[in-house]
Amino acid sequence: MNDLQGRPIGRYPVPPLRDLPADIRARIDAVQEKSGFVPNVFLTLAHRPDEFRAFFAYHDALMEKEGGLTKAEREMIVVATSAANQCQYCVVAHGAILRIRAKDPRIADQVATNYRKADISPRQKAMLDFALTVSHRAEEIGDADFEALRGHGFTDEDAWDIGAISALFALSNRMANLIDMRPNDEFYALGRAPRG
Amino acid sequence: MNDLQGRPIGRYPVPPLRDLPADIRARIDAVQEKSGFVPNVFLTLAHRPDEFRAFFAYHDALMEKEGGLTKAEREMIVVATSAANQCQYCVVAHGAILRIRAKDPRIADQVATNYRKADISPRQKAMLDFALTVSHRAEEIGDADFEALRGHGFTDEDAWDIGAISALFALSNRMANLIDMRPNDEFYALGRAPRG
Amino acid sequence: MNDLQGRPIGRYPVPPLRDLPADIRARIDAVQEKSGFVPNVFLTLAHRPDEFRAFFAYHDALMEKEGGLTKAEREMIVVATSAANQCQYCVVAHGAILRIRAKDPRIADQVATNYRKADISPRQKAMLDFALTVSHRAEEIGDADFEALRGHGFTDEDAWDIGAISALFALSNRMANLIDMRPNDEFYALGRAPRG
Amino acid sequence: MNDLQGRPIGRYPVPPLRDLPADIRARIDAVQEKSGFVPNVFLTLAHRPDEFRAFFAYHDALMEKEGGLTKAEREMIVVATSAANQCQYCVVAHGAILRIRAKDPRIADQVATNYRKADISPRQKAMLDFALTVSHRAEEIGDADFEALRGHGFTDEDAWDIGAISALFALSNRMANLIDMRPNDEFYALGRAPRG
Amino acid sequence: MNDLQGRPIGRYPVPPLRDLPADIRARIDAVQEKSGFVPNVFLTLAHRPDEFRAFFAYHDALMEKEGGLTKAEREMIVVATSAANQCQYCVVAHGAILRIRAKDPRIADQVATNYRKADISPRQKAMLDFALTVSHRAEEIGDADFEALRGHGFTDEDAWDIGAISALFALSNRMANLIDMRPNDEFYALGRAPRG
Amino acid sequence: MNDLQGRPIGRYPVPPLRDLPADIRARIDAVQEKSGFVPNVFLTLAHRPDEFRAFFAYHDALMEKEGGLTKAEREMIVVATSAANQCQYCVVAHGAILRIRAKDPRIADQVATNYRKADISPRQKAMLDFALTVSHRAEEIGDADFEALRGHGFTDEDAWDIGAISALFALSNRMANLIDMRPNDEFYALGRAPRG
Repeated sequence: MNDLQGRPIGRYPVPPLRDLPADIRARIDAVQEKSGFVPNVFLTLAHRPDEFRAFFAYHDALMEKEGGLTKAEREMIVVATSAANQCQYCVVAHGAILRIRAKDPRIADQVATNYRKADISPRQKAMLDFALTVSHRAEEIGDADFEALRGHGFTDEDAWDIGAISALFALSNRMANLIDMRPNDEFYALGRAPRG
Repeated sequence: MNDLQGRPIGRYPVPPLRDLPADIRARIDAVQEKSGFVPNVFLTLAHRPDEFRAFFAYHDALMEKEGGLTKAEREMIVVATSAANQCQYCVVAHGAILRIRAKDPRIADQVATNYRKADISPRQKAMLDFALTVSHRAEEIGDADFEALRGHGFTDEDAWDIGAISALFALSNRMANLIDMRPNDEFYALGRAPRG
Repeated sequence: MNDLQGRPIGRYPVPPLRDLPADIRARIDAVQEKSGFVPNVFLTLAHRPDEFRAFFAYHDALMEKEGGLTKAEREMIVVATSAANQCQYCVVAHGAILRIRAKDPRIADQVATNYRKADISPRQKAMLDFALTVSHRAEEIGDADFEALRGHGFTDEDAWDIGAISALFALSNRMANLIDMRPNDEFYALGRAPRG
Repeated sequence: MNDLQGRPIGRYPVPPLRDLPADIRARIDAVQEKSGFVPNVFLTLAHRPDEFRAFFAYHDALMEKEGGLTKAEREMIVVATSAANQCQYCVVAHGAILRIRAKDPRIADQVATNYRKADISPRQKAMLDFALTVSHRAEEIGDADFEALRGHGFTDEDAWDIGAISALFALSNRMANLIDMRPNDEFYALGRAPRG
Repeated sequence: MNDLQGRPIGRYPVPPLRDLPADIRARIDAVQEKSGFVPNVFLTLAHRPDEFRAFFAYHDALMEKEGGLTKAEREMIVVATSAANQCQYCVVAHGAILRIRAKDPRIADQVATNYRKADISPRQKAMLDFALTVSHRAEEIGDADFEALRGHGFTDEDAWDIGAISALFALSNRMANLIDMRPNDEFYALGRAPRG
Repeated sequence: MNDLQGRPIGRYPVPPLRDLPADIRARIDAVQEKSGFVPNVFLTLAHRPDEFRAFFAYHDALMEKEGGLTKAEREMIVVATSAANQCQYCVVAHGAILRIRAKDPRIADQVATNYRKADISPRQKAMLDFALTVSHRAEEIGDADFEALRGHGFTDEDAWDIGAISALFALSNRMANLIDMRPNDEFYALGRAPRG
């Protein structure tokens, strides 16, 4: 399937919306309604309805829940780990969401290029240190990493959240790179207007 | 929660079975019935019911479906990528499943230490090459990688399966290392009796 | 020295403009005139006038000259290598220049996250392959790398240009990270208006 | 030379036992007597008698001597470093010896996949940290590494033992991978019966 | 252009001395006068006069200035980082200069192979630790790295010097590898006579 | 034990010569006779007589034998792999031997810094490519690597020699770094006189 400019949005076929199972179509209609466009992750993953349902169930369980992390902080984790994994779709799409949630037009580019230099708190840097450890050398995680988080006021449940978001996007980044998922043009400009 | 020897099966609390939601309890009862014990992945992930449901839905969508890969081949992908990620739970548990599915007492140890030297076909080595590429440098995947698979008779749907299993265990390996998931003692010996 | 929001633009002191040598002050006045603001690279490097002069002389020799590469292509090299080196200043500032020179509001984010997936030509991907080789494993460069460029119509003088821009920003990225150079707020939004 | 199933045990020719020098033949006869089979390392290295003699002299000097490390601990070093080097022969063969020496059917699989999660003492983890440092970044070893060992009660002679075993298997792992040394089928099952 | 033995000194053409701009020719005449030969870096870079001028201006600004580092210490930084980047020209040429400046026939080989084992002071090792951090992971530099230098009596201006020399040779090493710059035969033997 | 300048030649005690076993003392006397000094590897390893004997037996089996590689080529393998492992003793000591065996005062510094740029034949570069593969990623060695050697006229016995020398110095480099083995001052200047 191609986008409006005729460019493929992924390496795999995308079924016509009318052929999709009703629940998937309903989710796509809802996001279209809310956002004004359908992010390509919904269309490209619809090629595999069961995996679509599992992925978004996982996503919602981690990104929409209550908890010790703000929604902006969760998006920071997505952007920082996805940038390290060179996932174009995830950095561009979640960069837009991060800008909106943080109400900050510059935060996403900062976190994507080098979170150590971003305008975030020391607590948030510790959160991203942990997320990157899960992303790149989870085999070495131990008590000291949990202690470092506790030193910034994070609970062990927060640690699970941070690690699980990092782990989910370890999956998501790989799938997006595998299927050549193209970010929608709309994402690039979203949330860039300065705070007023 | 501790195992029968009093060792913790993970870093996080595990709810008593009676307190679990009915669907999760049913799944755990079913696996207990079938296997004779409850693999610790079910108990440790039950700490987060929504994530539990999403994870096993994803797992079943990839590991239980029909398709161009045999069930043994899917387990090879799990074992090879989990070994590269140093995930003790996944290598030990899925190593057992691989031995059983392949009816081969030695295959799991071979694939875990160096799949290039394992007693598998050239087609299976190409499958694992692709799986490891997705696992470790998905950002570089391109047409040449798909071509290499096609040269061994894999379809592009097979490529999605291989890559998606690798990506799911990129998630799973990180979660198991994060929560210090302990393999059940039972797994080590399963499937080791020689073919007769 | 701090920016208008009171945030330091770098780790080192910045001399008052009136105390700068005349040639450096003239250059800063000129860029202020042309851009409407003074990019922080000029202010932070002014701490060392001789190094300032040498850096911009090198920069101009490579980025302002005639030759086989378009100005947009030179900025692609800067953005791709600086992203790999996690240089926030260079990615943000040269990302803006790339958007303007390429008249494309999306190109910089694409090249920064994963140039292999960017909307650029195969020739430009070969150019960035060479640039990244110089950036990350120059010790392995050999005839085959030059041949690959020639296969896309690049001359050996173009190869020098590509490699030298990559090498100059190997220096620049390290200096910016060393001195904690902060990108000006203005850069983030520049060149993001869609082509009309 | 092939094994009983007709599979080659290595990439190089193996001389008939009767053609081997008497001392090498005596060593092979002795191990056959003791173990009930001839491990393939003896047969494949017999292709080069002088190197065979030197290798086993080195091996015996480190693995059979008295000292501060138990024999099981020495095998842990072999298994952990050989797994990191993806040496199938060494992990499978010495994994069996480790299970037998430690009287533990699970220890080898734990140490091979991620020794940080194995059922071993903190002292043994410090021993394996040092062994892996020698294996992978010996150029950085310094006083702090020796201090860390001393903090767990190891002497500097123990440090030499740990490092030398790691270094010997740096050699051994490379030779086994070079000559495609196949583990004997017998090793996989040895020592797996539960302690009774 | 070839050297006296007929071997090319680089991959690119070198203009005849008489065709060079007067200032470049003057610089080359001066170094010939002083050293008795013309180091190939002057000849190979003369292919691009503007880059030649910028490079040597940068070089002189860092290597010839007054400051907290001795000239021998600056050469140590060049040798250590150039060895890590496998730059033959820079290691051989600056190794000679280091021997001369340090009046020590062995220092260059020590610093090039493993500076941690060289006969240099702890302060100089801290200096090289910082230089290598800038060379290989400048994106991680932070306050702790500056603190470590201060603990050895270095000022923040010294830190800039150390980092900037490392950064300049990040450029220089890449250019030398790109253009296949050949060290002059003379360098190998310079400064090797024992002190006495 | 210290050298003539009072610097320790290693981290471990060295026994007085008169206390050494007769065979080790004889070997040390012989090398003293031949070279005019005792290389520190003999003294530092004498701390462990059995390991001393095994090491030199291995060394002689590979470095003193007849075969398809010249003695200079064997030393090239030692120097190239030891430089990659940052082993000061091995690079300095075997660099001297390489200069003498190749009758070339510059070859060792070239091979140590970047063998791809050294004045050696394409056949010798292929030899060093194979040696470095064994040194750094032996787990990936396969038929293609052997084919590449055959294309340059190497037999499979030569391949064993190349790989085994690389493997022996994988051991030796780690031991020298572990015990802080100091190169004798004499080595630095040996073989540096130009060919006449």
